[in-house]
Amino acid sequence: MSTRLASRMNHVKPSAIRELLMLGADPAIMAFGGGYPDASLFPLEGLDAVFHAAIAEHGRESLQYSVPTGLPRLRAQVAARMALDGVPCGAEEVLILQGGQQGLDLVAKLLVDKDDVIITENPTFLGALIAFNPCEPRYAGVPMDAEGMDMAVLEDVLRREPRARLIYTVPDFQNPTGVTMSLARRRRLIELANQFDVMVLEDTPYRELRYEGETLPTLKSMDTEGRVIFLGSFSKILAPGLRVGWAVAPAEIIGHLALLKLAADTQCSTLNMAAVSLFLDRYDVDAHIATIRATYRRKKNLMLDTIRRHFPQEVSCTDPAGGMFIWLTFPAGFDTARFMSEHALPEARVAYVPGATFFPTVQEANHARVSYSSPPDEVIVRGMTALGRLLRLRMGG
Amino acid sequence: MSTRLASRMNHVKPSAIRELLMLGADPAIMAFGGGYPDASLFPLEGLDAVFHAAIAEHGRESLQYSVPTGLPRLRAQVAARMALDGVPCGAEEVLILQGGQQGLDLVAKLLVDKDDVIITENPTFLGALIAFNPCEPRYAGVPMDAEGMDMAVLEDVLRREPRARLIYTVPDFQNPTGVTMSLARRRRLIELANQFDVMVLEDTPYRELRYEGETLPTLKSMDTEGRVIFLGSFSKILAPGLRVGWAVAPAEIIGHLALLKLAADTQCSTLNMAAVSLFLDRYDVDAHIATIRATYRRKKNLMLDTIRRHFPQEVSCTDPAGGMFIWLTFPAGFDTARFMSEHALPEARVAYVPGATFFPTVQEANHARVSYSSPPDEVIVRGMTALGRLLRLRMGG
Repeated sequence: MSTRLASRMNHVKPSAIRELLMLGADPAIMAFGGGYPDASLFPLEGLDAVFHAAIAEHGRESLQYSVPTGLPRLRAQVAARMALDGVPCGAEEVLILQGGQQGLDLVAKLLVDKDDVIITENPTFLGALIAFNPCEPRYAGVPMDAEGMDMAVLEDVLRREPRARLIYTVPDFQNPTGVTMSLARRRRLIELANQFDVMVLEDTPYRELRYEGETLPTLKSMDTEGRVIFLGSFSKILAPGLRVGWAVAPAEIIGHLALLKLAADTQCSTLNMAAVSLFLDRYDVDAHIATIRATYRRKKNLMLDTIRRHFPQEVSCTDPAGGMFIWLTFPAGFDTARFMSEHALPEARVAYVPGATFFPTVQEANHARVSYSSPPDEVIVRGMTALGRLLRLRMGG
Repeated sequence: MSTRLASRMNHVKPSAIRELLMLGADPAIMAFGGGYPDASLFPLEGLDAVFHAAIAEHGRESLQYSVPTGLPRLRAQVAARMALDGVPCGAEEVLILQGGQQGLDLVAKLLVDKDDVIITENPTFLGALIAFNPCEPRYAGVPMDAEGMDMAVLEDVLRREPRARLIYTVPDFQNPTGVTMSLARRRRLIELANQFDVMVLEDTPYRELRYEGETLPTLKSMDTEGRVIFLGSFSKILAPGLRVGWAVAPAEIIGHLALLKLAADTQCSTLNMAAVSLFLDRYDVDAHIATIRATYRRKKNLMLDTIRRHFPQEVSCTDPAGGMFIWLTFPAGFDTARFMSEHALPEARVAYVPGATFFPTVQEANHARVSYSSPPDEVIVRGMTALGRLLRLRMGG
């Protein structure tokens, strides 16, 4: 290996997510760490049928190169779905992506220079930090309560940071907290973005997984100045192994993102785009989403009930109205990473994600993220019961 | 749109490839521009069967998230194929990529800083320049003859460029020239890379498409210091719409590239990796490659014969021993871009790629790339005959 390279490599940091993926692979561990969808909900029959159709009926096209922006038919279908969600737009405002994650990478490449400031929720999605880091931004984390980002703090950050370029938010059932931004805060965020001439990146992988309450309008639907870039994904409503997501933004921005995509990986899999397009044509994806919602609602209630029954009173948790995650907060001074390696894993065989990794600047040690989407019901009950009993024992609660 | 963003966007340049893709979509044009495989050669039956198996038999795994490095089974299969090609390696030295293009992007991100020098063949693959450009490198193009890069010039460049970081080469049936690097030059390139402590990026999308002569050893097979990063692809031997390629490099480099991949798009499609893996298990991919070779050999000979029969003597062309491209060189002063828009397109309805776009620094106007892989035989004959006659008419040859 080049000696220059060897020194350079010290700058690439290993990822906590990767280590957790490895942990999750041990079948003896009850894993609540990963943000995996429930694989038993994948629409196998439908996907089998549409892949067969895409290959056997349209294989000469759907296995060939396409264009970096994505299959025109799928772009139009996504635009039509966006319109039903309050964002009337044309196919030219849609870019098909290699999952929502690629949107984080491309948007940062387009908008963020070294030492520019990215404003995020505090805590925020770890995958976004990983995508943004190569641009060497500075971060400003805005604290949250049950209604999302604190808008007074956001305004303060925007006032004192002239290099703020981008507000990154997961407004619906946020990862990792499960919190949803209230309507009033959404309106205020758009006002502030307009006032301070900042772009907004709205990431919505869980948006369609609402279990209760009314759907709130997207930030994009309130955007009158073309400054919201919206990211959506089929990962949680069809299957993540397809790697198909999308961005919605003004056509000029989509054009520039498409050039960055061309440079990065030429295009998404033509076949997977064709199959998703056929699925939307031939199957009732909203009926399928209703099934996912019902299952996750049951699992969320099961996990929350078990936590409330067995955890010490000093541990608080969020009660999300959708999505895949519950956020646990322990008393100050409690270190969830240390507790996991010293007690939860060896004594209860339970894995969660220690919360520190989700904070962009000052890492708080006393939180944890647990996911109820993937484990079977009985594992949710057994795992949360075991963790709760262990916590009571060790915390003396 | 943000006013800051509007000014920033001027830095993202539109791509010649994209404009050509649009041209190729006009059915009235005989298109020899794109580097598309012949879609009639896609192994539809086999792909249909393995996608069905991956979904119906293994759908819970193959539609779920996997790991950023790629499916372990496919990594092992690729390693086994590499060993048969003279590169004994383990699965941990293989990274599965979203097509070879993603390797260009990730390797540049890992190795190249602003104003570092990337050495390429002159001319070189346009997609590589597009992938490297966001790192803002300087380029040094090394001229080629029928044996590939001129090694005396390469040595001279390495001597006077202390910031040379990477030698990028397509040694087999290069894009755009069709030229193959000789064995002696390959050995010398490795010597020079070792002497000057530079990394080598060996890009081999066409390697298995040899029509005649003996396969030459890869640069990677001669690499004793772990400084060659090898890129391979299933795009030309199975189908590009799958977007499955791979890198081979020392395990430590693969680990760092995998972290960059995690940031960029999480992972490749689990489903597509599973299907390719099953294809390699259940079908004879080498027999399939033999069919592709026979077809492309016929088409290459057909195109070359037609060119030799109908083109003016002043136009020279390469005679590739494999791959998908012939490189035409016109007399000095001839402008192939202008000739295409003023004559070839309106009068002969023929499109090729004007050569200027393939030069990293000084663009030469008097070349063109034509591809014989995708058009049917009769279009090859009709298109090259029409272009030749038009050239004779306009050049007075």
